[in-house]
Amino acid sequence: MDITPKKGWRTKLHDIIYEADTPGGKLFDLVLFIVIIASILFVMLESVNSIDEKYHNFLDISEWVITILFTIEYIARIITVKKPLNYVFSFYGIIDLLSTIPKYISLIFGGIHALAALRALRLLRVFRILKLARYLGASNNLVNALKASKAKISVFLFAVLIIAIILGTIMYLVEGEENGFSNIPKSVYWCIVTLTTVGFGDIAPQTPLGQFIASLVMILGYGIIAVPTGIVSAEYTAQSKPKKQDTHNNVSLNSQSCENCLAENHKDKADYCYNCGEKLHI
Amino acid sequence: MDITPKKGWRTKLHDIIYEADTPGGKLFDLVLFIVIIASILFVMLESVNSIDEKYHNFLDISEWVITILFTIEYIARIITVKKPLNYVFSFYGIIDLLSTIPKYISLIFGGIHALAALRALRLLRVFRILKLARYLGASNNLVNALKASKAKISVFLFAVLIIAIILGTIMYLVEGEENGFSNIPKSVYWCIVTLTTVGFGDIAPQTPLGQFIASLVMILGYGIIAVPTGIVSAEYTAQSKPKKQDTHNNVSLNSQSCENCLAENHKDKADYCYNCGEKLHI
Amino acid sequence: MDITPKKGWRTKLHDIIYEADTPGGKLFDLVLFIVIIASILFVMLESVNSIDEKYHNFLDISEWVITILFTIEYIARIITVKKPLNYVFSFYGIIDLLSTIPKYISLIFGGIHALAALRALRLLRVFRILKLARYLGASNNLVNALKASKAKISVFLFAVLIIAIILGTIMYLVEGEENGFSNIPKSVYWCIVTLTTVGFGDIAPQTPLGQFIASLVMILGYGIIAVPTGIVSAEYTAQSKPKKQDTHNNVSLNSQSCENCLAENHKDKADYCYNCGEKLHI
Amino acid sequence: MDITPKKGWRTKLHDIIYEADTPGGKLFDLVLFIVIIASILFVMLESVNSIDEKYHNFLDISEWVITILFTIEYIARIITVKKPLNYVFSFYGIIDLLSTIPKYISLIFGGIHALAALRALRLLRVFRILKLARYLGASNNLVNALKASKAKISVFLFAVLIIAIILGTIMYLVEGEENGFSNIPKSVYWCIVTLTTVGFGDIAPQTPLGQFIASLVMILGYGIIAVPTGIVSAEYTAQSKPKKQDTHNNVSLNSQSCENCLAENHKDKADYCYNCGEKLHI
Repeated sequence: MDITPKKGWRTKLHDIIYEADTPGGKLFDLVLFIVIIASILFVMLESVNSIDEKYHNFLDISEWVITILFTIEYIARIITVKKPLNYVFSFYGIIDLLSTIPKYISLIFGGIHALAALRALRLLRVFRILKLARYLGASNNLVNALKASKAKISVFLFAVLIIAIILGTIMYLVEGEENGFSNIPKSVYWCIVTLTTVGFGDIAPQTPLGQFIASLVMILGYGIIAVPTGIVSAEYTAQSKPKKQDTHNNVSLNSQSCENCLAENHKDKADYCYNCGEKLHI
Repeated sequence: MDITPKKGWRTKLHDIIYEADTPGGKLFDLVLFIVIIASILFVMLESVNSIDEKYHNFLDISEWVITILFTIEYIARIITVKKPLNYVFSFYGIIDLLSTIPKYISLIFGGIHALAALRALRLLRVFRILKLARYLGASNNLVNALKASKAKISVFLFAVLIIAIILGTIMYLVEGEENGFSNIPKSVYWCIVTLTTVGFGDIAPQTPLGQFIASLVMILGYGIIAVPTGIVSAEYTAQSKPKKQDTHNNVSLNSQSCENCLAENHKDKADYCYNCGEKLHI
Repeated sequence: MDITPKKGWRTKLHDIIYEADTPGGKLFDLVLFIVIIASILFVMLESVNSIDEKYHNFLDISEWVITILFTIEYIARIITVKKPLNYVFSFYGIIDLLSTIPKYISLIFGGIHALAALRALRLLRVFRILKLARYLGASNNLVNALKASKAKISVFLFAVLIIAIILGTIMYLVEGEENGFSNIPKSVYWCIVTLTTVGFGDIAPQTPLGQFIASLVMILGYGIIAVPTGIVSAEYTAQSKPKKQDTHNNVSLNSQSCENCLAENHKDKADYCYNCGEKLHI
Repeated sequence: MDITPKKGWRTKLHDIIYEADTPGGKLFDLVLFIVIIASILFVMLESVNSIDEKYHNFLDISEWVITILFTIEYIARIITVKKPLNYVFSFYGIIDLLSTIPKYISLIFGGIHALAALRALRLLRVFRILKLARYLGASNNLVNALKASKAKISVFLFAVLIIAIILGTIMYLVEGEENGFSNIPKSVYWCIVTLTTVGFGDIAPQTPLGQFIASLVMILGYGIIAVPTGIVSAEYTAQSKPKKQDTHNNVSLNSQSCENCLAENHKDKADYCYNCGEKLHI
């Protein structure tokens, strides 16, 4: 007796679109990945005047092809999920919508500039595809280490900001408008440029006193870069160690996504969604 | 019999102003935080000519409102503490005073420029409010690690300074005034800009020999940035480990502040100030 | 009875050219090292117009001498190896060929510019000679740590690239062509310049909003530099530790190279190639 | 019977000049430290034209006073050491001589420019005085960690240099003279400026291909900064650990210096020099 029921076309489509361990799912992800990268390249090339003049028609048609492909994908994602609204208002649901609509908007309002940003957001969809990367085990510790150090790094960045504001105000008073420090926000901007060791040089202190304070800012910035690095190093080392002991925690997760509630990270042996109890199709 | 005596209004006010674990204390800290941030924003906006011209009256009135709020707070802090002089001459006492007086000074002397720096110092008061942050346990290890590495980092920065002076003198001789290295202090400034990998580019070597020496300076700077980072990493790792063993040290501290001597970091169960023996009100 | 057969001239030459533990082999490596470094210096000097004008003949003759030396070496490498094709199509075989031919090409096609790049590739041959460095035990752990962190650093760099593209598009919209952000690729370039804290300053944001976003980019870049550093630190620490325990793994390798298949990293006591079974001459 | 013989004036003077644990020795070091710092400040100020014009006489007389003080010290160092030639040809002996002679040279040859560099070398003498710092235990681990990572960091810097030369040659071919990459040495200089994330911006790529390659160089530089940092972190952690176990190694050293051979780092309980057997005066 075959216990697993025969899958309908909707379930099959769901597996292809939302999962990555079947050949169909892998192919779908690969094609989607290529379309997204091509789309981003076209957004970039379109912004280059000389290229846009020559290949305007080609870029326009390509954008229409990509938009239609994304539209089909968006509709397919909606109809293969049991609770479509859950998908529509999820993070990736919104990203998918925003990735699809720019060309339709331009039909109505004309080719407004800001649509380029909307189209660049498509790149975020790559992260969903890179769900695959998680299986490489490459970034798990890294993500945990970053989560563990989030609070500390926030406190650190907040301190950096306070230092930048106070030193920026002082530099504004010392250098003044005639040397490019034309107001406090600009001085604070300069201070961040210097503290982070970026150093554009569009604004640079001219007075000896300003250069002296700038030297202190730079040495300070050079010293405090050690802090976030030290935090991440230590957390990452801490994350790497317990893993060897707690091997019983090392359950392997698969790339399935629940048809009902879109929950991910199911265990390999799971038959039912841990979140809503829906039957999972392996 | 109720052992804890009925609190007077002064004690209640003291709890609200100096502590952060009652609802009143939390609200007070939140309001103060918002006022400080608003105040800093106004200082910044005032320095932007175009904004100051349009909204001069609004910014002027806002500053008066903030000054009056700070004045009330300053007086309240004095009258709710048993030994007011301790507060007045404490670090935060002085900061509080300096935060309050700029507008009064401008009444007498007119709106002198340097008052902006005094007003920016208000930002330091945020650290007192962030006493709350300590409860997140976020920055304790970090602070300890930084304290432990202070001596080593000082020695390191001192060595960097000596390198900068010697190399700066050499660059002054190699490049000379015609290429922007117009005197030794300026050359040393350039050397610090380069060693810390900031690289403004306002002064840059033009002669082949100068560029060769600059390359050495840069590679040196690139190499020695590893030193403070390594120190903090190692110290931070060291700080993180013993904590797990010495759990008996992990007493939880509260945000109370002694009414008498302003000492902080009392243990949760403490009934009397560890510093002066004054009764604490929980 | 002498078991090791008398070595023929080919075997002797093979030992000198491919190995580094005989006096002859060391001398050969040293001479080759000097010739390569001299060759690179000449490539550099030739590109400086003022020097090329003065010493054109000397540089031309030097290049011919070096080319002939490399030709002799290349032929010697081919005839002393049992399977010459293996060598010719190996990585270093191709590099050796490319290092030798530029001057011959210039005879036919004239001194085309791109040959300089071909000649600079000679520098890669230094790594083969630095096979010696491996004996110092200096870089083994380092290489292992870098290999172990390759996947994680790739994921990290990929994330940096996505951030750069999205932020670059936003900066293109905010700043626009009039402030140097003339198209999206250029904005992405600026974003990478800023995220990596290089900060040339050839393009710098001019609008307050652009400077605000730039500040966020810089602080982000300052924060995420901690990630690769933390990864390498942790991996390197991990690589250093097990070594002390698994001393039985610490077999010493020598610099021999199999005459037949060019395999390297033979154990000191090995009599036969671990790869093809060919007898090794010690 | 008093075993320790009465000290002669020479021995007393030796203790004051070469050692730092008597009150006299500490005072001598402090005075010397102040004189050196003052001397460096005068070198700097003298190079500033506007200051030199006003205070030329004061600076000239100060330099004479400092020179005479250094001359006295130099002579005292020679006569209080048993083997003067050992001192004269030691590292600090040469530095002391070079610190003293600039003013005498200027008497003969006039105030030649290069003497400033000679005078800046005086700063190196501060390291001898900071022998004191060693007692703080601050830099010992640090120095050991740096020594342990020296070989690895050299290999790493060598690899960086090879990368810079190859990429510099490619950039020279891609960008060419018209964009500031006027010859290969200059391109290599640019490449080092970029790899080390300094980024002056005096030379910046203008062509799209050049900017693309530059982006790769920057990301590479951003990635490889992790390497030296990781090395020093790991070595420093390794240096910190064994110390706790091997407390029997923790002998305290004093600041004595042997009168005969100038050897330092004697154990606190040592009665005779570990190097030459000379009696030490405590």
